Amino acid sequence: MPSQPHANASHTLAHFLAEHSGQDIPPAIQHEAKRSLVNYFAVALAGSQDPTLGLALQTYLTFSCGAQASIIGHAQRTDMLNAAALNAMSANVHDYDDTHIPTILHPTAPVAAALFALAQTRPVHGRDFLAAFIMGVELECRIANAVSPFHYANGWHITSTCGVFGAAGAAGRILGLSARQQHWAMGNAAAQAGGLVECLGTMSKSTSVGNAARNGLMAALLGQNNFTGPDAPLEGTYGFVRVFGQSPDLDALTSGLGRTWELSRNTYKPYPCGVVLNPVLDACLALRQSAAWRTDSHDRIRSIQLTGHPLLRQRTDRPDIRTGRESQVCAQHAIAVSLIRGKAGLAQFSDAEVNDPILRRLGAKVQFVDDAHYSVDSVQLRITLDNGDVLTHVVDAARGSLPNPLSDADLADKLATLQAYSGVRCDTEHLLDRLWQLEHETDAGALMQIVAGT
Amino acid sequence: MPSQPHANASHTLAHFLAEHSGQDIPPAIQHEAKRSLVNYFAVALAGSQDPTLGLALQTYLTFSCGAQASIIGHAQRTDMLNAAALNAMSANVHDYDDTHIPTILHPTAPVAAALFALAQTRPVHGRDFLAAFIMGVELECRIANAVSPFHYANGWHITSTCGVFGAAGAAGRILGLSARQQHWAMGNAAAQAGGLVECLGTMSKSTSVGNAARNGLMAALLGQNNFTGPDAPLEGTYGFVRVFGQSPDLDALTSGLGRTWELSRNTYKPYPCGVVLNPVLDACLALRQSAAWRTDSHDRIRSIQLTGHPLLRQRTDRPDIRTGRESQVCAQHAIAVSLIRGKAGLAQFSDAEVNDPILRRLGAKVQFVDDAHYSVDSVQLRITLDNGDVLTHVVDAARGSLPNPLSDADLADKLATLQAYSGVRCDTEHLLDRLWQLEHETDAGALMQIVAGT
Repeated sequence: MPSQPHANASHTLAHFLAEHSGQDIPPAIQHEAKRSLVNYFAVALAGSQDPTLGLALQTYLTFSCGAQASIIGHAQRTDMLNAAALNAMSANVHDYDDTHIPTILHPTAPVAAALFALAQTRPVHGRDFLAAFIMGVELECRIANAVSPFHYANGWHITSTCGVFGAAGAAGRILGLSARQQHWAMGNAAAQAGGLVECLGTMSKSTSVGNAARNGLMAALLGQNNFTGPDAPLEGTYGFVRVFGQSPDLDALTSGLGRTWELSRNTYKPYPCGVVLNPVLDACLALRQSAAWRTDSHDRIRSIQLTGHPLLRQRTDRPDIRTGRESQVCAQHAIAVSLIRGKAGLAQFSDAEVNDPILRRLGAKVQFVDDAHYSVDSVQLRITLDNGDVLTHVVDAARGSLPNPLSDADLADKLATLQAYSGVRCDTEHLLDRLWQLEHETDAGALMQIVAGT
Repeated sequence: MPSQPHANASHTLAHFLAEHSGQDIPPAIQHEAKRSLVNYFAVALAGSQDPTLGLALQTYLTFSCGAQASIIGHAQRTDMLNAAALNAMSANVHDYDDTHIPTILHPTAPVAAALFALAQTRPVHGRDFLAAFIMGVELECRIANAVSPFHYANGWHITSTCGVFGAAGAAGRILGLSARQQHWAMGNAAAQAGGLVECLGTMSKSTSVGNAARNGLMAALLGQNNFTGPDAPLEGTYGFVRVFGQSPDLDALTSGLGRTWELSRNTYKPYPCGVVLNPVLDACLALRQSAAWRTDSHDRIRSIQLTGHPLLRQRTDRPDIRTGRESQVCAQHAIAVSLIRGKAGLAQFSDAEVNDPILRRLGAKVQFVDDAHYSVDSVQLRITLDNGDVLTHVVDAARGSLPNPLSDADLADKLATLQAYSGVRCDTEHLLDRLWQLEHETDAGALMQIVAGT
């Protein structure tokens, strides 16, 4: 008989979460976890000042039952459930957070938000925090792998639906849940999984992302209290991966568990845009810094030819956008704003920029050329000037892709840049020092005081 | 061009919720709403003492931020979000609550729990409460109609997934939301819809039912605060009915809106069992009260022949059950316990009763006969005694079915019986008087004080 690694996947995963010592996680994965956390604080600081968070705070803090935990970018404190929700929202509101390449899930926001909130209620050593984070991400990404690509394509917001499991598993480790309690926590998480792609572009997306962190933490607290769940919350006939998936890959839940790590497939965005625009922006910024580019070159452009994988055109050919949010997935805007401003940060993808007629005129000159030989990480940009000169730049692997990841220094820059953008008072160098040394921190939750603003 | 009533269903429903005066709702529907509320308090009193609620209170009340609202059957008070969650759990934990026949959704638990919690935070007139309740039920049942039967059959716990919309719409009326805000509240509800059939029979089912009430109320509060949602949270490409449905019936969302009322298809259970057992229990209790029945007849039974729709056998032929919960869907146990005890209440479907060997011996004598000519509301019970005598009883339409609904007096009895079962101190006659006169109540939330226990 062939082995059936998935026959009792929930059981296997619960034991993994409860019993893995955390000690033999490879150093590269531990470092990737820290990189994910640096990126988390960067995007959460920026997101904390978004209007979505302003309104969310007004409503959520009406139901605040304590001052256990910090809210990134805000001086108020609140209970750990609210803090988990609000900080996950901040980290994801701009979709500038990390991306698990196989599933396009943003793994860190729900897990880190729940963990840091919980870690503010008791001393948690940095090495235990890291292990919990890594295993929470492992759980949510494996569940996401099992239901992909159908799940997201059918309309579930995978960060929300799968994130709740990651938050539950990670929090459960810190709470010291037994395997049986982790199993129940997984069931309590499955009962709460939700989130729709239809909500993207509106504030209600943040409701489900916040719930992933909040309800995952709650699921672990319920599990700690022996609040029971089903035997097979994932693989059962009416369990999560069968109900929210179509022909799910059950092997993905447990195959190689403890030997391979999903964090190795995590990436960080250099720009606050859909990932297919990464090579486009790389090309524009590189051309603009080339010797051939003149200060007024953007005024002298006759045509712009963008050659890439057909998906690039399908996702980003948007000649008539109205909002900053739409501009994050619009090649015309991305090209125009990066060529003219020389930057591609959050400020360049705002409502105000979208309505600039100079940008619109330049964007209208973009012509797409489909070429399936290109990977989604690559493009060729070819700009023809009024005098007939041609400027060309080819990107083979965009910054922020798996083959060309952001460096640690890039992530440090991102943290500093987004802290400055946010206006939140925060010593990012100090934060960075402590994050890179997180395994030596005796009280991981104390880091939250650095980002709470004043 | 044919009209397309569903082309903008979310918009239509939001306007319905915000703008319907509530004044021309037919008296029969208003009365049905009161009947639903009588049944709600009956089952919630009983459920409030279930171990599930004991554990839930321990965890949920750790995050209680106030004493705005009552918890049915418990002296503690809590904030309205927690109260909404806990009271919905109590009402549904035994699956003894009401049933919307076309979808098998339990419509009242999420809506009433959210409404009463909110009504304890401000004066709400009884007639406004009734209108909000009726329209919340209308919304959740129409959404459930649109995704049935695929939705439940595929594994979503429809009371949880659709209940969140009912709670949001009803609470939104009390909060005075504009149509635009109701629309956003619907989006915030859609973002939070979840709940799995796999969790039935475990405590985690109650997590999602509680969430339906809690998160629906939260969705309305977010809507009041102009927290935005998508244009088409229901009918959009990635909206609820398309993602959680398969070939959804979009017409069901709005066809006849304001002219037909889903509460007219609501029913109440006479027994704490799967509805297909209703005619079986009717037949057993009728036979036991017949003149031919002797005190020791149950000791002299040679065989029991049960003839009914094949679904009866498929759902309830369970010769080897272990728990009280399983006994609620077991014909062998239902027949044995009702013939021997002469009752079919919660106490008869307990773990202790299941393990009684006398009941097991009698249950083993049951033989099923499939006959597709029978409706699911009908059965023939034929008992042959040791001496060859045959006792027969036929039920054409079970008590609690749409053609043979429980009377108001039956519901009053159910309330008194379940209050006694619960042991909660509660003046049910006083409660009943005020519920039947709810449209004259100036402060509907005040009713909660009657059921809070002491």
